[in-house]
Amino acid sequence: MTEPRWDCLLLDATLATLAGERPFGLVECGALALKGGHIAWVGAAADLPGAPDGLATAVETLDGALVTPGLIDCHTHLVFGGDRAHEFDLRLNGASYEEIARAGGGIASTVAATRAADEDALLRQSLPRARALLRDGVTTLEIKSGYGLDLETERRMLRAARRIGQALGIGVRTSFLGLHALPPEYSRQRADYVALVSDVMLPALAAEGLVDAVDAFCEGIGFSREETARVFERARDLGIPVKLHAEQLSDLDGAALVAEYRGLSADHLEHLSESGIRAMAAAGTVAVLLPGAFYALRETRLPPIDALREHGVPMAIATDCNPGTSPLLSLRLAANMACTLFRLTPEEALRGITLHAARALGLADRGTLAVGQRADLVAWNAEKPAELCYWIGGELAREVWIDGRKASLS
Amino acid sequence: MTEPRWDCLLLDATLATLAGERPFGLVECGALALKGGHIAWVGAAADLPGAPDGLATAVETLDGALVTPGLIDCHTHLVFGGDRAHEFDLRLNGASYEEIARAGGGIASTVAATRAADEDALLRQSLPRARALLRDGVTTLEIKSGYGLDLETERRMLRAARRIGQALGIGVRTSFLGLHALPPEYSRQRADYVALVSDVMLPALAAEGLVDAVDAFCEGIGFSREETARVFERARDLGIPVKLHAEQLSDLDGAALVAEYRGLSADHLEHLSESGIRAMAAAGTVAVLLPGAFYALRETRLPPIDALREHGVPMAIATDCNPGTSPLLSLRLAANMACTLFRLTPEEALRGITLHAARALGLADRGTLAVGQRADLVAWNAEKPAELCYWIGGELAREVWIDGRKASLS
Ligand SMILES: [Zn+2]
Ligand SMILES: [Zn+2]
Repeated sequence: MTEPRWDCLLLDATLATLAGERPFGLVECGALALKGGHIAWVGAAADLPGAPDGLATAVETLDGALVTPGLIDCHTHLVFGGDRAHEFDLRLNGASYEEIARAGGGIASTVAATRAADEDALLRQSLPRARALLRDGVTTLEIKSGYGLDLETERRMLRAARRIGQALGIGVRTSFLGLHALPPEYSRQRADYVALVSDVMLPALAAEGLVDAVDAFCEGIGFSREETARVFERARDLGIPVKLHAEQLSDLDGAALVAEYRGLSADHLEHLSESGIRAMAAAGTVAVLLPGAFYALRETRLPPIDALREHGVPMAIATDCNPGTSPLLSLRLAANMACTLFRLTPEEALRGITLHAARALGLADRGTLAVGQRADLVAWNAEKPAELCYWIGGELAREVWIDGRKASLS
Repeated sequence: MTEPRWDCLLLDATLATLAGERPFGLVECGALALKGGHIAWVGAAADLPGAPDGLATAVETLDGALVTPGLIDCHTHLVFGGDRAHEFDLRLNGASYEEIARAGGGIASTVAATRAADEDALLRQSLPRARALLRDGVTTLEIKSGYGLDLETERRMLRAARRIGQALGIGVRTSFLGLHALPPEYSRQRADYVALVSDVMLPALAAEGLVDAVDAFCEGIGFSREETARVFERARDLGIPVKLHAEQLSDLDGAALVAEYRGLSADHLEHLSESGIRAMAAAGTVAVLLPGAFYALRETRLPPIDALREHGVPMAIATDCNPGTSPLLSLRLAANMACTLFRLTPEEALRGITLHAARALGLADRGTLAVGQRADLVAWNAEKPAELCYWIGGELAREVWIDGRKASLS
């Protein structure tokens, strides 16, 4: 008797592969085999090359449950100290942004709380947020720095991000976001801070293997195109891909800038121009939509979805999980918001939290159910792919596999 | 040695009692004792009448965790067959409401699926939705009929609702919503259907103990004021309280109608008039806000929050969980939407899902942490009451007690 060729075979699954021509890449009465952390076979169960029991060491029947690639949250700031619930309360009780800023609120309060937290404290505070995402089906997660704004604290944030990956077995990609805000101690020395980020912090953190990508907040209230370019140049020298917070509140032509560097993604994009879209399309830069921030800020200007479609720019969707403008702990809810508020179709939304999100992270090894892809997948308490975007809240993930192993959801 | 006076004593809790003068009724370093399913003592731990260990059979330390009354979802339609994810998908792919209706969609599809489901099937399909609410901190739940529109199916829905209460140990209040939509077989006999609801269905179901309240959908596309009044009259004869879907899409003066019957609540209320508010205030009728439907339908007309405040009308918030216009499975998310979209303060929102929601159900025995109240409470993975409204999604409930017993959240 020969040894079974696969580790595990899942039967009676409704597969939303996100590959192929059919809507959602749907395969009904599907089967999927895992071996050594990868997908070894996927298709209609009727096409299996033999009787299931002989094919795999373990055979599991899913009773028709929907199976998708593991979800990918390609834009989060989920490592931070403290929270901003008190500000949320103050604002709803009538305090203005100025009053809150004068009282030490806004991003300054998160920077202070993050600087005050040691690495273990940062991990302890951030881990439940990552776990909430995992329980909702997220198997790969991007995490940015940017609440330290000094070398030590930025390092601590990125190390905490890596440790989240180890603790949960979840995939973590780090982005260095030194140009997130001007730290208080540099309030009159912008150029010095930009130089510090570009010439000291980025090379040091990159040398420690903590930087998978470089990000910046290119905005009137953030950093200019020129300041951003200075850091992008350094990233290019170091061989690190870039991405950008662009065109959220105004049009600084950031999308074209990041496209110039063949960046992974431009994110937010409510004020994106036609020329920005063309530049992104030409460079293969992904548009990352962040409807949680749109919702929480009660924005009214929609990102140019139709034009992005027309130009074939892939759209990803992320939580933007952060304490100020998007304290959002569910990627599935972000997908619902993308459908409800931005009018994406459920299929676009589902591609946006799998395949296109992988692309926004520069990852080609995940995001679809196809042979050779990482065995990151989710079995849902649902039967149809559209349900993942339709239900608002609740708990739909039944089982999550990361790298071929079942993740603990508790 | 005397027997301890209490069953259980919770220590080191941050209590949001929703009682008393302080914001949120907050008691820091609080203690709370349970006995026989009721709250036997609540206050600052320093004021306990003795050493904790001698006071209760079980003593539990909560490490500062926030404790609130169990949440109360006072408006749901969560018993139904099927779902409408496919319609959601069609609409986002460009189908008009008319096209969907012609294809048998809309409420007709839910009526058909509900009629086709036997009681066990209805329970099996609906239980996960109730469990999702429970896991999010809901300990009392209102459930409406209204997708049967014939006696047998309405009965099955209400019996399934009661069984949800038994299965989860959760409090369930039923509302008979015969006037939800005109069933297809009565499409040319409106008056006959109203008579059937009023003269046959309501008395029969009430006699079976299945009707805690009577509701109707008073709207241009629903039932008129006169049709509604006909059923309310019968409810009055039977001694059953009334409530109403009112002023969601237009102003039919439904709030004044339900106030005339000293109704428990008027719900939705985007188009509520000043005179409707006055009538509600005079009658003690609660305003139930349903931001999930507002969000899902992308409405723009806000309910008159300021005027409700001015006139002292208590505001409750509910999920409206239903397959068509609010597939919302988290009451905490409804509270976040009430803050974000309707600009309620977190304190108003929290009262709206506890104390005022209890009042909207005619229940005086729950909704606050006070001596004599039912021991329905939640310990949260949070420290401040505002966090419950601030976080969007995720899982915050740590432990839930219903009637003095810990509920199973799995
Ligand atoms: Zn961001
Ligand atoms: Zn309703």
